[in-house]
Amino acid sequence: MDGRSNTSAIGIDVGGTEIKGGLVTSDGHVVEKQSMPTEVAGGVDHVIGRMEILVEGLRRSATSASLEVEAVSLGMPGTLSRRRGVVIAPPNLPGWRDIPIVARLSSSTGLRVVLDNDANNAALGEYLCGAGRGVRDMVMLTLGTGIGGGIIVDGKLWHGSGENAGELGHMIVDAEGRVCKCGQTGCLEAYASASSTAARASELVASGEASSLKAIVDGGGTIDCRDVVEAAKAGDVVASRVWDATCRYLAVGCINIRHILEPERIVLAGGMSAAGEFLRRPVVEAMAVLTSGMLGEPPDVLIAELGNDAGFVGSALSVFQGGA
Amino acid sequence: MDGRSNTSAIGIDVGGTEIKGGLVTSDGHVVEKQSMPTEVAGGVDHVIGRMEILVEGLRRSATSASLEVEAVSLGMPGTLSRRRGVVIAPPNLPGWRDIPIVARLSSSTGLRVVLDNDANNAALGEYLCGAGRGVRDMVMLTLGTGIGGGIIVDGKLWHGSGENAGELGHMIVDAEGRVCKCGQTGCLEAYASASSTAARASELVASGEASSLKAIVDGGGTIDCRDVVEAAKAGDVVASRVWDATCRYLAVGCINIRHILEPERIVLAGGMSAAGEFLRRPVVEAMAVLTSGMLGEPPDVLIAELGNDAGFVGSALSVFQGGA
Repeated sequence: MDGRSNTSAIGIDVGGTEIKGGLVTSDGHVVEKQSMPTEVAGGVDHVIGRMEILVEGLRRSATSASLEVEAVSLGMPGTLSRRRGVVIAPPNLPGWRDIPIVARLSSSTGLRVVLDNDANNAALGEYLCGAGRGVRDMVMLTLGTGIGGGIIVDGKLWHGSGENAGELGHMIVDAEGRVCKCGQTGCLEAYASASSTAARASELVASGEASSLKAIVDGGGTIDCRDVVEAAKAGDVVASRVWDATCRYLAVGCINIRHILEPERIVLAGGMSAAGEFLRRPVVEAMAVLTSGMLGEPPDVLIAELGNDAGFVGSALSVFQGGA
Repeated sequence: MDGRSNTSAIGIDVGGTEIKGGLVTSDGHVVEKQSMPTEVAGGVDHVIGRMEILVEGLRRSATSASLEVEAVSLGMPGTLSRRRGVVIAPPNLPGWRDIPIVARLSSSTGLRVVLDNDANNAALGEYLCGAGRGVRDMVMLTLGTGIGGGIIVDGKLWHGSGENAGELGHMIVDAEGRVCKCGQTGCLEAYASASSTAARASELVASGEASSLKAIVDGGGTIDCRDVVEAAKAGDVVASRVWDATCRYLAVGCINIRHILEPERIVLAGGMSAAGEFLRRPVVEAMAVLTSGMLGEPPDVLIAELGNDAGFVGSALSVFQGGA
């Protein structure tokens, strides 16, 4: 056992397109990982069946490696109730309504099952094994189609009084600004998510601004955030303006997190974080410009390290953590 | 002793105009309170001398009441370092620069002395003995010349990694908006503090808008926030518009606190909270309008209960609390 823990948990991260799972020891070693398409169109029972297959496979690996499995820990998209173990109405899992997933999976596997929000679990994964190692408190912004987040205060995930803390994408950064999908006006997500970045670029191209991105639209395609990043890297003026605005709004979000919670570290994760330094550096620079003249050090801003593994790693390790 | 605790602490709340102090038992009973003008113009040594007088008076009360004094706890305006026990550069105490107040006061009184931000202590006071009783987590917005705050997470004050958490007035709510005294653009404080409320009203009056507030300016006076509240209550259209905007921006601030931390309760404190329901109700209504369509319950919003006592009460009781 190389001195490693012989206690483990099975972490499962259920997304709209893929289910990822891993067998993780209590000290953070990933013994094995597996994944399969979610096949959400097959319906709730079909997806749960696939989750069971993944759990069984990882459980066999645990047996081979002489590891105890403490629990199965599910990370799923919200809305959900962690306390009740119920998936309520996740937009990314159409057809799922009030599914008592914890009861169902513990009944079929005979294992203890726990549930949390996928963004929370990913934040815990980065905190324990990735870009958050070594700090006491950390906030993670998950930048994808929307903007989610997770908050670690004093070493523990902070869930909030109604289990909805960390909805960082819906902090309002421009009270007179763009309308968000959630109905609020001026949410961070309405500016700085991958889809909002793409939408702002598409609007400029549609309004007739000269940009290399027009070729995508002319070819019948749709501009996505990666297109904006690539065009900005290549020097396209419109794409650069859009990306600068994305980074500036993210800087405002990070500044607000700083003024409210002042975590030691902020981690940028999710699909958009693949842009790496091309994302991180302008965010940090915009934070410095916006807060120039204020006392105190801003938090570190780092890019997430674990990529798609953060979800199941954090999920598994949450079994061994106290939560709040 | 009526079954009361016989352990107490002396809480001292040092403001720019008044020093308030109280002898408080570990179970929150205020045995005695005293106050005196700060006389900040007299200089640092003079003010410290006055703090010592207050401590001695309260200590004698403790002796008369057969109470042990565990410590003297100071609430002072920032900037300061709680860990180092040093007042760094508080705008409200001109002339104070890097004063090791904890060392000085513990040397002169022979008592253990601790230091924290006045807004943090006031939040703790309300949490333990006022409008925050009975909840696990609470955020307090202190609405005065500026906007400060205090955050209680899981029963404990949250100080942040650099002791500057809870700077709620400097969250950015309108990235394209008014410039704040701190140098940032669009801070909550630039819209919703008492002084910003007065400033917005003054600007409208100066621009020629018809308002009963004009009489104040014509009489050589300056419009303050109370004038705006009184005029709005009397139906003045300009004052009502200004006050509505103040409440709407406060609602945005509360919404952001909800999405990030989701505390069970938000408490509105400070001078402006004297407006009571005339403040609370429009804030709650604006929150409901702005978040209509979102799932979940918003936090309770309540007006602070302890008024000027919150500072020294929280200060004293912080001695008996774990902090973070």
